[in-house]
Amino acid sequence: MESLLNNIARYIQLEDDEKEYFLSLVGEKKVRRKQLLLQEGEVCHHSIFVKSGCLRGYTLDKNGDEHVISFATAGWWIADMYSLITRKPGQLFIESSTEAHLQLLTREHQEKLFEQIPKFERFFRILTENSLVATQQRIIDNLSLGARERYLEFIRKYPSLKDELPQKHIASYIGVTPEFFSKMMRSLPE
Amino acid sequence: MESLLNNIARYIQLEDDEKEYFLSLVGEKKVRRKQLLLQEGEVCHHSIFVKSGCLRGYTLDKNGDEHVISFATAGWWIADMYSLITRKPGQLFIESSTEAHLQLLTREHQEKLFEQIPKFERFFRILTENSLVATQQRIIDNLSLGARERYLEFIRKYPSLKDELPQKHIASYIGVTPEFFSKMMRSLPE
Repeated sequence: MESLLNNIARYIQLEDDEKEYFLSLVGEKKVRRKQLLLQEGEVCHHSIFVKSGCLRGYTLDKNGDEHVISFATAGWWIADMYSLITRKPGQLFIESSTEAHLQLLTREHQEKLFEQIPKFERFFRILTENSLVATQQRIIDNLSLGARERYLEFIRKYPSLKDELPQKHIASYIGVTPEFFSKMMRSLPE
Repeated sequence: MESLLNNIARYIQLEDDEKEYFLSLVGEKKVRRKQLLLQEGEVCHHSIFVKSGCLRGYTLDKNGDEHVISFATAGWWIADMYSLITRKPGQLFIESSTEAHLQLLTREHQEKLFEQIPKFERFFRILTENSLVATQQRIIDNLSLGARERYLEFIRKYPSLKDELPQKHIASYIGVTPEFFSKMMRSLPE
């Protein structure tokens, strides 16, 4: 479990009344496993903070095959950034992989926050930088690592997920078929 | 050609003395084609704004094969974000694909800017959001589009580059061998 206020306190300091104002803009949601929070063709209105549990962001290609773009575990944020910013329909599905406790901030409330408490610009600038680093690293890994090394990277990045998620979602994240993944797992040392 | 002040004026309004202060922090550099601006193992100290020309960000894998991560044309920024933020050695090479006119902002000067003129937090927050959208889209395209569709996306995203760059760099960007790329080009309608 990571609280949203702790997450923010990593980068900016808030006064008590600022904390109160911020929390007044945030919505709460508890979901069971396999709940769809966003689907392709919808406009993404929220940045979602994961307090506990795990969400999965994925796309479906023309053949109906799922491609996992990212997982968001406790303390992470997730959104379809394209859709959130442009307010146009996006391509991303966001689904709970486990039971999860979420906090939601709409783009409208985020803009309000920037106006009322400008240091939130700093918080989200740093958050977005970190997200960009993780996303660029994923491209580099996809282009230059083999499947086995990508799996080891997955374990390093999401140590808690290895035993918690269905193998097919991990396989999709590292970009191999479930069959190839099972074969690979049998050949890895414990 | 896009001026840095125009680039900034898209998102925030600066007073004359703020413009002056900002420009006092920015370095200028003109480079010929094929100049290496950053290499693997170095710490990336600058965000680079491309005033004219084109830069290429790439990695080399264990076999010495080049993987183009992104191009930066006039009006774009480029950096090894991981290295810039963590101040650790990065994996990215940045090289000029054409003659180019660049403006450079060190991370130290950027931090100074955030302190002196906080609305730059807003500017870089928006810039980083846009960059994140483009990077996420590249992952989605890599995972779900075929080579031919990725090439069409490349043309849409970088309309000016198609005839300006060596085919091998475009091939690397879309993730195919130069041989496959030539074959594909012959099969595309003009």
